[in-house]
Amino acid sequence: MRRQGWAHRTRDIQAFHVMSVLARAKVLESQGHDVIHMEIGEPDFSTPAPIVRAGQSALANGHTGYTPALGLPALREAIAASYAQRYGVNLDPRRVVVTPGGSAALLLVASLLVDPGQSVMMADPSYPCNRNFLRLLGAHAKMIPTGPQSDYQLTPELIEQHWDADCSAVLAASPSNPTGTLLSRAQLNAMADVTQRLGGHLVVDEIYHGLTYDCEASSVLEVAPDAFVLNSFSKYFGMTGWRLGWLVAPESAIPELEKLAQNLYICAPHMAQLAALAAFGEESRAICETRRQAFQARRDFLLPALRDLGFGIPVTPQGAFYLYADIGTHSSDSGALCRHLLENQHLAITPGLDFGDYRQHEHVRFAYTASLDRLYQAIERLERGLG
Amino acid sequence: MRRQGWAHRTRDIQAFHVMSVLARAKVLESQGHDVIHMEIGEPDFSTPAPIVRAGQSALANGHTGYTPALGLPALREAIAASYAQRYGVNLDPRRVVVTPGGSAALLLVASLLVDPGQSVMMADPSYPCNRNFLRLLGAHAKMIPTGPQSDYQLTPELIEQHWDADCSAVLAASPSNPTGTLLSRAQLNAMADVTQRLGGHLVVDEIYHGLTYDCEASSVLEVAPDAFVLNSFSKYFGMTGWRLGWLVAPESAIPELEKLAQNLYICAPHMAQLAALAAFGEESRAICETRRQAFQARRDFLLPALRDLGFGIPVTPQGAFYLYADIGTHSSDSGALCRHLLENQHLAITPGLDFGDYRQHEHVRFAYTASLDRLYQAIERLERGLG
Repeated sequence: MRRQGWAHRTRDIQAFHVMSVLARAKVLESQGHDVIHMEIGEPDFSTPAPIVRAGQSALANGHTGYTPALGLPALREAIAASYAQRYGVNLDPRRVVVTPGGSAALLLVASLLVDPGQSVMMADPSYPCNRNFLRLLGAHAKMIPTGPQSDYQLTPELIEQHWDADCSAVLAASPSNPTGTLLSRAQLNAMADVTQRLGGHLVVDEIYHGLTYDCEASSVLEVAPDAFVLNSFSKYFGMTGWRLGWLVAPESAIPELEKLAQNLYICAPHMAQLAALAAFGEESRAICETRRQAFQARRDFLLPALRDLGFGIPVTPQGAFYLYADIGTHSSDSGALCRHLLENQHLAITPGLDFGDYRQHEHVRFAYTASLDRLYQAIERLERGLG
Repeated sequence: MRRQGWAHRTRDIQAFHVMSVLARAKVLESQGHDVIHMEIGEPDFSTPAPIVRAGQSALANGHTGYTPALGLPALREAIAASYAQRYGVNLDPRRVVVTPGGSAALLLVASLLVDPGQSVMMADPSYPCNRNFLRLLGAHAKMIPTGPQSDYQLTPELIEQHWDADCSAVLAASPSNPTGTLLSRAQLNAMADVTQRLGGHLVVDEIYHGLTYDCEASSVLEVAPDAFVLNSFSKYFGMTGWRLGWLVAPESAIPELEKLAQNLYICAPHMAQLAALAAFGEESRAICETRRQAFQARRDFLLPALRDLGFGIPVTPQGAFYLYADIGTHSSDSGALCRHLLENQHLAITPGLDFGDYRQHEHVRFAYTASLDRLYQAIERLERGLG
């Protein structure tokens, strides 16, 4: 007699709704329909040429073996140096852990900080994988409803009000997925203070740093040297498929993280690490800046156009490539609205359900990972679909 | 007040002793000493040229984005087809999950099968990460002492004798790391039968398939279609640094595995997946076969030479690239013996401590991932070091 069913955690981990949207969009495309993709959190730019060339050169030179679990020393140094340049933060390269994607950075930090039964506090809405990593470890996300009054972010007051004995850490994201909002240096500082006073760890997802508009993002390391930072080469540097990210941690955590990394993934892809060394060069920076400007132009078009159509976007998003919109009078069922727009207008967007429980049926996420021309068409399709 | 310490699981997860050996070996090398490396489980061959070329071509063609979480369909098909060719097993490509390394395959299968408090039965000695993945999930490894009488493998009798209500699965490895021993088709069949009767899942690590000497390894899928199989491009195909593996699972498990994969790692590296398509071509196969013969020649030299020196290797290892040896009369402290050989003879081998608890102080592992010339020198150094 075969055991019935799978481990209990699998029941609590949901597939992303965005993946069903994508799968259905592909079926429509295979039937000859022209679908506009605004559902996926992936830049529509491929990796900048200098990074690709460095990857090819790594392969040509036979760099196909394992690297140290914490990453190639040269890459850890380059990442550390970028903190001096970008934020004026003097960062010891030994505090940088190179990981196979931001996902692995999240798994590492959760494994390090959270015991079974504990929780990590985060804003609702937030990135869906966060809560699933915690579920994997027998812990859970303590999702705090947030809205426009706090830019959809946690505040020191919210942290203090909801903190309890089971809380181990606070996880913030700046810029946030799905809302695109940032935390200022002062806000990060206040959040670090209260978290420290409560005896918790502060973890900040800075994966969308670099993709900011009309402002610069502050790193939590400017104000809280012992915070944990998650980052990735995927978004700003356009390296999603290479699977490369990093974690900055207090020095005292590094030996534990090294053990965990050895066991959980051995090392990040070698050729990706060598390729990423080129990401910090001038040529790559210039390409990434051009792309940032393209994203900004898209936001600047899309934001007022959506507002004109009656979508509620009360806080101007200043980062990432998402607009998180209250569907307001159009519907009270974002899943149904997304299906309607996909089936009848061939416009793919993500229902709020992926990002939490708080008013998720009343929200959708638009990813502006399509060209301006396509965004004009998207607005036309929205007008027709909502009309 | 900052929370003291880290999550409890970090205390139970040990760093690999092999990593301290490697670190010390590198210090000795930096002081000008010529160290022979027989400690690390990584082939001393880089990736075959046709695979490297396919990776470079993937980059040249801009394949730098995410892939589906389960892997590129073409690669899943190529892996499935290889089961028909190699084992005569007709495998539906939808049952193949492409993973970022064998490590991720292990994390997936453990996440799917094991609840907190449960255990997975495995042989002591075995691959050290196995038990640490379980610890991560609040579960544990049930390590069953095995010796030469069962080729260091579990048997149906051992499984039946030690099975209890907390057991969820049996994990076997053929060929095994560290012992290099195999399970025959009949043994796999009997193991599958008893595991099924007891209500457990059978997982077989087939990561060293292809690297066998004087025999062919049978896949558990030849006799138990609903077993789980872990495999990797790292060892036989020499792709360690690309981080690419796979898992074969029953069809009913695939939707759950897809959810877990989406959350845990998004996808395996895109260029590695395209490169691996070339691994099944004739040119790559020929290169891998030449390398297999080189490993066989090394085993054929090293095994009698170590036996002549008094090391106990009672079962002839027929796979992988390891010899697991009872240090017998030389010492009763394998850690001390390894340190002595490293410091005084500059020969790096791994103490048994990495592989379990049963008679580990009396065993060491030799990896024959060095050329025959170096192995001759290693035997000379051993003679001097033990003399």
